[in-house]
Amino acid sequence: MIGKLNHIAIATPNLDEAIKTYKDILGVKISTPLDQLDHGVKVVFIELPNTKIELLEPLGENSPLENFLEKNKKGGIHHICFEVKEINSAILSLKKDGATILGDGKAKIGAHGKPVIFLHPKDFNGTLIELEEV
Amino acid sequence: MIGKLNHIAIATPNLDEAIKTYKDILGVKISTPLDQLDHGVKVVFIELPNTKIELLEPLGENSPLENFLEKNKKGGIHHICFEVKEINSAILSLKKDGATILGDGKAKIGAHGKPVIFLHPKDFNGTLIELEEV
Repeated sequence: MIGKLNHIAIATPNLDEAIKTYKDILGVKISTPLDQLDHGVKVVFIELPNTKIELLEPLGENSPLENFLEKNKKGGIHHICFEVKEINSAILSLKKDGATILGDGKAKIGAHGKPVIFLHPKDFNGTLIELEEV
Repeated sequence: MIGKLNHIAIATPNLDEAIKTYKDILGVKISTPLDQLDHGVKVVFIELPNTKIELLEPLGENSPLENFLEKNKKGGIHHICFEVKEINSAILSLKKDGATILGDGKAKIGAHGKPVIFLHPKDFNGTLIELEEV
């Protein structure tokens, strides 16, 4: 069902410091920070030769990162995102297999403007997984 | 400094269940399990079109996964691995920048038979990072 790894999302309480780490120490190019108020995050993108990393800081009230950063004060890997061809057939297949889709179980438009769902970590070895239709 | 994402390593207390999840629910092909006693893990590889996922279960005594699985009972993302061209020049650059290299600070032969180092999560947004020379 899944195709490419689209991105790894790393949550941080301090985006400026995380940018410095990745730029100055790991030597990567980083996009301009972008406020995604609808998604409760401020984000920068790091293009690696084969995939992307997203560094995320909470933005606004009720950011989806808040609980995570309470448990992981220094930040950490928040989720990984795999690509799928058709999100609605992925949803049908996942429901058949008993996997828990977060929210109302329907695809939403994600941070890249494409339909996404999130899968509950309890069904996937403690890993929060995003599926994005590409 | 860093190039491709080489792999995402996901730790699990139960490799058989994790294999089932990825094979039956997410529909990927999975390698035969491999005991890597030197590294304290039993591992399977999942080849995605652009990178790899490794599912790891502790093996033997003093597995490097034990502390992680005590804190994360259901498992989770243990580390991510980026490729570098020359591990020794990476080490020099990282030390200059004040990053903490785990162990004795020297490259070891990793699970793929290539020189690797691990970077302390405190310097990298709570993320355990492996660098592998390719």
